[in-house]
Amino acid sequence: MKGKLTVFKIGGKVLEKPALLNPFLKNFSSWPGAKILVHGGGAKASQLAKQLGIEPQMVNGRRITDAAMLEVALMVYGGYYNKSIVAQLQHLGVNALGLSGADANTILAERRPVGEFNFGFVGDVRKVNRQRLHWFLESELVPVFCALTHDGQGQLLNTNADTIASELAAAMSKIYDTQLMFCFEKKGVLRNADDENSVIHHLNRAGYEALYKQNLVTDGMLPKLDNAFKALQNGVNQVRITNVNHLTQGTLITLE
Amino acid sequence: MKGKLTVFKIGGKVLEKPALLNPFLKNFSSWPGAKILVHGGGAKASQLAKQLGIEPQMVNGRRITDAAMLEVALMVYGGYYNKSIVAQLQHLGVNALGLSGADANTILAERRPVGEFNFGFVGDVRKVNRQRLHWFLESELVPVFCALTHDGQGQLLNTNADTIASELAAAMSKIYDTQLMFCFEKKGVLRNADDENSVIHHLNRAGYEALYKQNLVTDGMLPKLDNAFKALQNGVNQVRITNVNHLTQGTLITLE
Repeated sequence: MKGKLTVFKIGGKVLEKPALLNPFLKNFSSWPGAKILVHGGGAKASQLAKQLGIEPQMVNGRRITDAAMLEVALMVYGGYYNKSIVAQLQHLGVNALGLSGADANTILAERRPVGEFNFGFVGDVRKVNRQRLHWFLESELVPVFCALTHDGQGQLLNTNADTIASELAAAMSKIYDTQLMFCFEKKGVLRNADDENSVIHHLNRAGYEALYKQNLVTDGMLPKLDNAFKALQNGVNQVRITNVNHLTQGTLITLE
Repeated sequence: MKGKLTVFKIGGKVLEKPALLNPFLKNFSSWPGAKILVHGGGAKASQLAKQLGIEPQMVNGRRITDAAMLEVALMVYGGYYNKSIVAQLQHLGVNALGLSGADANTILAERRPVGEFNFGFVGDVRKVNRQRLHWFLESELVPVFCALTHDGQGQLLNTNADTIASELAAAMSKIYDTQLMFCFEKKGVLRNADDENSVIHHLNRAGYEALYKQNLVTDGMLPKLDNAFKALQNGVNQVRITNVNHLTQGTLITLE
């Protein structure tokens, strides 16, 4: 029988608010079974970029990463947030290990080819080193991933944290019964973005396509939902999009 | 028979110059046996602090770390440099794993008590987790440490990179025949700071004390030499202070 693994993703808006982050980390620390945490940090990255006179640019909810913005991403994702979360989890008794995809070569990516848009130093995941992650997890280490990967040629790349969470969950599902949790500040996928009580409790692919056609999927939700379905197609047992402090509620995503 | 381990420390001035850093990383990648790299990054940290309107303060060659400066240290040491070095080493075939002392609880420290000076969020090392590091090394991972530790209570701390290198080397000498290498931009310990050809090839404690009394030890050299002797007293086989691109030359430090 496979062991259980839960991959959690928390976004930039959660990281910025101790009132959201601290209770989440406490719940995370007592969550049973093997677990991995993936975090973003875009809000603070934009803020630091602004302080340094770099203007952040977005396309379809994704950041364009030029050389200056990559440096900011290294500092904010790989440094500030990653180390802060690891230290807090250690205090909560979780033996956290902060990782970028370059560390122990855990996530190899390739720079996205220039098509309609040039996203800059953005990486699409090529390979998750599932054996190395399994080895960490078996030793009761808890990997904490930031939104950075590498190309194996010395270049670090920015990869969307939702995508990293989805790719990790899919890869690890060969070894573990894997659940993927996108945790954020809202209650779940909302039918009406302005109404916190319009949570869709169950969403399948047909339902998603219907929402999409009605223009009811917000920019920020697009990568989460795309990644949710991709993960399910690639062997992940269950995906949930939920409030960071109500982990067992929110929107359950299934293929059918 | 014990295996061999070499602990290398490179400083901020090396990190800033690709002409120094790149050949070093290449030599490091082909260095035989188990190895650990420790890096600083103070020069860039000072620069970023300045850009953000934070004035860096130093006492006896050591940085005072207030909350704003700690955040800069997390970003520059834990993020920018640590991830960049790890990605470059991966390209060179070294399975590097970037670490702060909080990661996998590798280095526990305590905040330095306020005495003559208040150094702020500065940590004195209490415990190196040598079994965890041994476990990484046995799996041919190469730990790359930045100048950050934690207190186990959720607080990250800045610890001088020379001190981290010395403490790591001393702790690991219980398991490995350990050599400690302080690598920097000069040729070694100089009798005359203005004369690159005044390298002292061999320095023992008596020689060091004589130099100290003559006021010939520069501020930057003080922590290196203090840490060198401390490491030797604690079981390290050999300490060398040398140019980053001439690893087998420079100043050999021994107790007697």
